[in-house]
Amino acid sequence: MKAARIIKPKEPLIITDIQKPEPKGMQALIKVIASGVCHSDLHLWEGGYAGAAGSFIRVEDRGVKFPLTPGHEIAGIVEKVGEDVNGLRSGDRVLVYPWIGDGLCPACRVGSENICDNPRSLGVYQNGGYAEYLLVPSAKYLVKLDKLKEEEAASLACSGLTAYSAVKNANIKPSEALVIVGAGGLGLIGVQLARSITNSKIIVIDLDDKKLMEAKKLGADYIVNSKSEDPVKAVKELTNGLGADAVIDFVNASSTVSKDLEMLRKRGRLVPVGLFGGSIELPLVSIPLRAIKIIGSYTGRLDDLFDLVTLAERGVIKTIISKRFLLDEVNKALEELKEGKIVGRAIINP
Amino acid sequence: MKAARIIKPKEPLIITDIQKPEPKGMQALIKVIASGVCHSDLHLWEGGYAGAAGSFIRVEDRGVKFPLTPGHEIAGIVEKVGEDVNGLRSGDRVLVYPWIGDGLCPACRVGSENICDNPRSLGVYQNGGYAEYLLVPSAKYLVKLDKLKEEEAASLACSGLTAYSAVKNANIKPSEALVIVGAGGLGLIGVQLARSITNSKIIVIDLDDKKLMEAKKLGADYIVNSKSEDPVKAVKELTNGLGADAVIDFVNASSTVSKDLEMLRKRGRLVPVGLFGGSIELPLVSIPLRAIKIIGSYTGRLDDLFDLVTLAERGVIKTIISKRFLLDEVNKALEELKEGKIVGRAIINP
Amino acid sequence: MKAARIIKPKEPLIITDIQKPEPKGMQALIKVIASGVCHSDLHLWEGGYAGAAGSFIRVEDRGVKFPLTPGHEIAGIVEKVGEDVNGLRSGDRVLVYPWIGDGLCPACRVGSENICDNPRSLGVYQNGGYAEYLLVPSAKYLVKLDKLKEEEAASLACSGLTAYSAVKNANIKPSEALVIVGAGGLGLIGVQLARSITNSKIIVIDLDDKKLMEAKKLGADYIVNSKSEDPVKAVKELTNGLGADAVIDFVNASSTVSKDLEMLRKRGRLVPVGLFGGSIELPLVSIPLRAIKIIGSYTGRLDDLFDLVTLAERGVIKTIISKRFLLDEVNKALEELKEGKIVGRAIINP
Amino acid sequence: MKAARIIKPKEPLIITDIQKPEPKGMQALIKVIASGVCHSDLHLWEGGYAGAAGSFIRVEDRGVKFPLTPGHEIAGIVEKVGEDVNGLRSGDRVLVYPWIGDGLCPACRVGSENICDNPRSLGVYQNGGYAEYLLVPSAKYLVKLDKLKEEEAASLACSGLTAYSAVKNANIKPSEALVIVGAGGLGLIGVQLARSITNSKIIVIDLDDKKLMEAKKLGADYIVNSKSEDPVKAVKELTNGLGADAVIDFVNASSTVSKDLEMLRKRGRLVPVGLFGGSIELPLVSIPLRAIKIIGSYTGRLDDLFDLVTLAERGVIKTIISKRFLLDEVNKALEELKEGKIVGRAIINP
Repeated sequence: MKAARIIKPKEPLIITDIQKPEPKGMQALIKVIASGVCHSDLHLWEGGYAGAAGSFIRVEDRGVKFPLTPGHEIAGIVEKVGEDVNGLRSGDRVLVYPWIGDGLCPACRVGSENICDNPRSLGVYQNGGYAEYLLVPSAKYLVKLDKLKEEEAASLACSGLTAYSAVKNANIKPSEALVIVGAGGLGLIGVQLARSITNSKIIVIDLDDKKLMEAKKLGADYIVNSKSEDPVKAVKELTNGLGADAVIDFVNASSTVSKDLEMLRKRGRLVPVGLFGGSIELPLVSIPLRAIKIIGSYTGRLDDLFDLVTLAERGVIKTIISKRFLLDEVNKALEELKEGKIVGRAIINP
Repeated sequence: MKAARIIKPKEPLIITDIQKPEPKGMQALIKVIASGVCHSDLHLWEGGYAGAAGSFIRVEDRGVKFPLTPGHEIAGIVEKVGEDVNGLRSGDRVLVYPWIGDGLCPACRVGSENICDNPRSLGVYQNGGYAEYLLVPSAKYLVKLDKLKEEEAASLACSGLTAYSAVKNANIKPSEALVIVGAGGLGLIGVQLARSITNSKIIVIDLDDKKLMEAKKLGADYIVNSKSEDPVKAVKELTNGLGADAVIDFVNASSTVSKDLEMLRKRGRLVPVGLFGGSIELPLVSIPLRAIKIIGSYTGRLDDLFDLVTLAERGVIKTIISKRFLLDEVNKALEELKEGKIVGRAIINP
Repeated sequence: MKAARIIKPKEPLIITDIQKPEPKGMQALIKVIASGVCHSDLHLWEGGYAGAAGSFIRVEDRGVKFPLTPGHEIAGIVEKVGEDVNGLRSGDRVLVYPWIGDGLCPACRVGSENICDNPRSLGVYQNGGYAEYLLVPSAKYLVKLDKLKEEEAASLACSGLTAYSAVKNANIKPSEALVIVGAGGLGLIGVQLARSITNSKIIVIDLDDKKLMEAKKLGADYIVNSKSEDPVKAVKELTNGLGADAVIDFVNASSTVSKDLEMLRKRGRLVPVGLFGGSIELPLVSIPLRAIKIIGSYTGRLDDLFDLVTLAERGVIKTIISKRFLLDEVNKALEELKEGKIVGRAIINP
Repeated sequence: MKAARIIKPKEPLIITDIQKPEPKGMQALIKVIASGVCHSDLHLWEGGYAGAAGSFIRVEDRGVKFPLTPGHEIAGIVEKVGEDVNGLRSGDRVLVYPWIGDGLCPACRVGSENICDNPRSLGVYQNGGYAEYLLVPSAKYLVKLDKLKEEEAASLACSGLTAYSAVKNANIKPSEALVIVGAGGLGLIGVQLARSITNSKIIVIDLDDKKLMEAKKLGADYIVNSKSEDPVKAVKELTNGLGADAVIDFVNASSTVSKDLEMLRKRGRLVPVGLFGGSIELPLVSIPLRAIKIIGSYTGRLDDLFDLVTLAERGVIKTIISKRFLLDEVNKALEELKEGKIVGRAIINP
C-alpha cells in the first residue's frame, strides 16, 4: 500500500510502498477515505515548535520517531477486522479516534487516553492516516458514521474534539458569558458547540472581520475585533462591567492570554487551548484572591468523540472542507497550509 | 463596649468605647471570647500588601474603609438574638463564619459567599472581633460548638477553613501524591486534613527542619527541606519519576511556584493559596500540552466550616495556641506577629 | 389591598381586603401582574393529595396553615424596596423565586432552598401571589426581566424550573437517549430544554396524540403513544435494544414508573417528578445489579432560575398562556383547572 | 495445570487437569497464590439466586456458561507476560481486577468496566482463580502489591472494592450521618473506609452483637441492634430527629430497605448493595417530595482498586482471613461457606 512518510524533518515527505498490515485480535484495518491536514502535522514536519523565551522544542525529544506516516484526522471504511472483534464488519464507515494511550496509566484507566503519561497517538507516535490503509490497535477507537461523509467527519477527531473538550472544560451556564478567542477552525466549531450545549452568552474575539462575521452567523451573540477596539473594555461593557465567566483561548499567545486574565470575572475560568507559544508574567496573589482557575485543555476523550459525532450527525456543527488533495500531492498540501492558503480544512483523499 | 480599631493605617490601634449593638431580625450579638490574630490583620494595619513587580496594593482601593475593628477569627457566646432567630439562644457557644457576601451575586446564590463579587467580610469590610461584642448579620453564620473551646475554634474560621478548602480543591485520591508547600499554620492543618479525608501520599516542603518534623508527626509521609535539597528532584524521586498529582502552595511566591510547576505531573493540579506576592513567567504551551490546572483557592465556604468544626470536635485536627493577649494589648500582639515571634496562633481574649 | 385567600379547605376562596405590607431591610414589595394557576394550588384548596395505598396526605400535616393566600408563580413590578436593598428599584420588572427555605439548613447553605428541611415557600407556607401585592422576604429572590412579559415569565418559577431541574438531574449526554414521560405543561418545556442544553436523542411518551404532535414540533426526535403501542418495546426499538439512558417521569404513577424501570438501560437514571401518587413493587436486587439510579427531583434552585430566565429571554423555551382571569374570578379559574378545561397555563391578573 | 470447575450447577466441582495457557500480546499469566471464596461463587454453584416474588434467576439466563472455573478474588505472582507488556515482569506480586468488560460499551469507555453492557468478569463469564494459573486478558488489570500478602489482598478485589464503591456513591461529608446496614465482611470494611476517607458520623445496624462490637472497634460511632431496638427510632435519636444523610445497605432485603427509606433524611441517599433479594412497595410521591436518591452500587472500577490497595498497604483497612483450603478441598470450602461456618474470608491456596 502507498503511504506518505516523513523520513527526516524539513525534507519533503516520500511516497513509499509499504506492506499492508494484517489486523489481529481486536485490531481493525481501515481503508482511508479522508485524512485531514492539521497544523500539528506541520510541527512534525518541521521537527518541533516554539517554546518559551525563543526556545525550540524538538518533537523527537518528546518521543516522536522518524520515519513516520503522519495524519490523525482519519475517516474511512473498515477493510478487515481481527478475530476478536465483534459488532463491526467490513464495509462499515467509521471515524478513527487517534489520541491513543498506553492503556495502563491513571488517565487511561478513566478513559482520558488523550492525556496519557505515555501517549501513542496515531499519526504522531504511531503511523497515521496519510496512507491508503491504517491499522487501528483496537476496534474500540472507531466511531460508526451514519449520514456524515468521511471528509465531513475527519476533522472532528482533532479540531472538533479539541473544541468540544474546551467548551466542556469551560463549564459554562446559560446565564454566564463565554469569550472565545480566535475565530479560526477551532473557534468556529467552538461557537457552534457552545451554542448547542450551553446556550450561554457568547462573545468572539479575533483580528479578522470576515472570520468574526462567520462567528456571528454560527451563533455568537457579540463579536469584537481586537485590532480596532480594546477587547478587555469591550467584554466588560458587554457583561455589565463584571467580565467573562470563562474564556477559551484557541490562540494562547502572550498577547491574548494577558488580555484574557484581565477580562476574566472573579471566579472565572481560563481555558488555554492553542499551541502558539510564548509566555506571560503571571501575578501570583490575584489567582487565589480572585479565585481564578486556569484549565489546560488538550484534544479530547474517546467518549466525547461519540457525543461529538452525534451532534454532527444531527447537523448541529458543520465543518468546512476547502480543498482536496491526492496522496501524491501531500507536500503541496502541507506547503499551502504553511503559507496560510487553506481556509477551513484541507483533506487528503488517498 | 470596648473595641480595638484601626483609625488610620500604620498608626497604633485605638481602644475606644463604642455603642453595644442591638440584634434585630435574623441578627445575633456575640460576646467575643477568643479572637485570632491573623497575618491579614497586619495587611489591614499596614494599609496594603505587595503586588506584582514591586507594586503596593492598598486595601482601601479594594473597598476597605477606616476606622475599622479588625478580627475575623471569632468564637464566643451568644448574648442576644434578633426576633426572627430560631434554634439559637443566649448562652450557646459558637464559632463565627466571617466571609460574608452580599447574598445576591452568583457565588452567594450557591453558597460560596467567600468569593462574592461584593464581599462584606467581618473584620475586613465590616467591624470584626477585636471587641467585646460582635454583631453578626444573620444567625446562619454561626456554627455551634460542643466540646471545642472558643480559643481552639477561633482560627478554624480562617486558617483552618482555608486549608480545608485548598485540600478539597486539590481533588486528590488515596493512590495519588500531594505536595504541601509551607509547613506554617496553614500547612500543618493542611497535612492533618489531607491525612484524614484523602489518605493520599503526602510530601511536605519547607525551609525549616523544626516545622518539617512537626509536619511528619502530624501525618506527612515524606518531608523535604528545600534549603538543603532540590525539591523538584526530591518529589520526582518520591513519585517514581512521575511528579506530584497536586501541589498546594501555602506560600505562593515566585520561588515556590516556579518549582511547583516543574514538580507537577502531567494532569496535575496546582492550588495557589498564599498571599506572599510576586509573579512568575508562565510558559503558555505547556498548560494545554500537560493538561495542567491552576486553581486559585481563597478562604472557604460556610458549608465547609460545618464539616471542619465536626472534624475538630472529633479530634482529627488540632490548632496550636501559643500566646494570649488582652484586648488592651492588641498593638503588642500585632507587633509580635509582625516580628515573627508568634509560633502557632495568638489569641485576643477581650 | 385585595387578596384571594383559602380560609378553609374545599370552601371557595374569599376575596378580602388586607393591609398592604411595608418592605423592610432586604425585603421588596411587588405589584403582582401575573400569577399562574398551578395544579398544586388545587391540592392546597382540597386540603391534601393521594398518598400510597389509597391514603390522603393532609397539607396541614405537612405544615400548611390557613387562612392562606396561594399562588407561587408570580411576576410583577417592584413597588418599593427595604432600606438595605441595592441594585433594584421601583419599576423594575421581576419574576419571583417562591421556593424559599429557612436559610439555615444544609440545603439552604449550598443554595438548594427548594429542598430545605423547613420550607417557607411563597403561596404554600407563606402568603403568595393571588393578591394585588406580594411581600418578598429578600430582594435576592427576584430575577429581573428584560424582554419577557410578566405573564410569559410567571410559570417559569414552577413548571419551567421543575422541568429544568429534572433535565439537569437526568445528566444526559448528546449520544444518549432521554425518555420524557408525559407531554403536558412540564413535559413540553422539558422537551425544549433537553433539546437546547443536552441535544440528546429525545423520545416522548404520552396517551394523547395532540400533545405528542406538539412535543415533536418542539424538539422530540420520536413520539410514542402508550395507548396504542407498548412503550417499553418502542423505546427498546428506538435504542438498538439497549433502553433509555434516562427517563424523566412527569406523571410518576404506578402505571408509568413500572414501565420506566423496564425501559431503562443498565446504568440508567430514573427521575421521578410528578406527584400523581400510588406506589410500585420495586425488585431490590436489580438496583445494584443493573447499577440503576432513582433521583427524586423537586422544583429547582434559585440559581437555576437565573439560567432558565436567560433561556426564555433568548427564545429557547416558550410557555403557552391559554386563559386569563381577574382576581375576582379565582374560584372559576381553579374550577376550570380541576375540570381539565385549561390547556397550557391559566394566569390571574390581579 | 489443575483447576476446580463447575461442570453442572449443584454438582460437586471437579478438579481437572487443563492446559496451562500461554500469554500473548497484552496478556499475563498469573500463578495463583490466594483465591477468595465468595458468596456469589455459591450462586454460580447453585445455578442462580432468588429474584422478586419467589422467582429464581438462573445465572445461565444471564450469560454464564458451564463448565466454568470460578474464583474472582485472585492474587498471585506473574509467571509470564505477552510480548506487548511493559512495566511488569515475572515474579511481580499482583492483585487481579476481575470485573472486566467488553471494552467497547459507554461504561467501559469511561473506565467503569464493572457495569459493562456485556460483562466478561473473571470467574463468572470467563475462567477464574480456582486454579493453579490464571490467564488475565491484559496487564492493565493487575495492581502490584508491595507489603500486602496475597491472601490479605485477594478479597479487596470483590468485597473490599464493593464497599469502597458504595462509600463513594454515598457521597458523604464529615458533618453528615452515614448508616451502614449489615456488619458482615462488606459492612466491616465499609466502616473502616468510611472512617478513613469521609470521617462522617457512622452508625452501624445489625442483628448480631458480636459483629456490632467489631464494627465499633473498627470505627463506628454508634451501633444499633435491630433485633432489640427499632432502628428507625434509634437513627432519628442519634441525628437530632433529622435522619441519616446516607444509608448503605449491604443486605438489601425487604425488611432492611423499608426501614432504610424511613430513616433517611430529606435529600438522603440510599445505596443498595446486597443481593439478598425480595422487593418493597415504594411510595412514588415521596421520592420527589423528599428529594431522595436511590443509587445502585455494583462492585467497583479498576481505578478505585488502585486507591483501595494503597489504603490497604497503608494499613487503613484490614481483611480477616479465617480459614485456608487447598484446591482439592474446594467443595468443602463452599459447603462450609454455605453452612455459615466461615467468619471473615476463606481462601483457597492452589
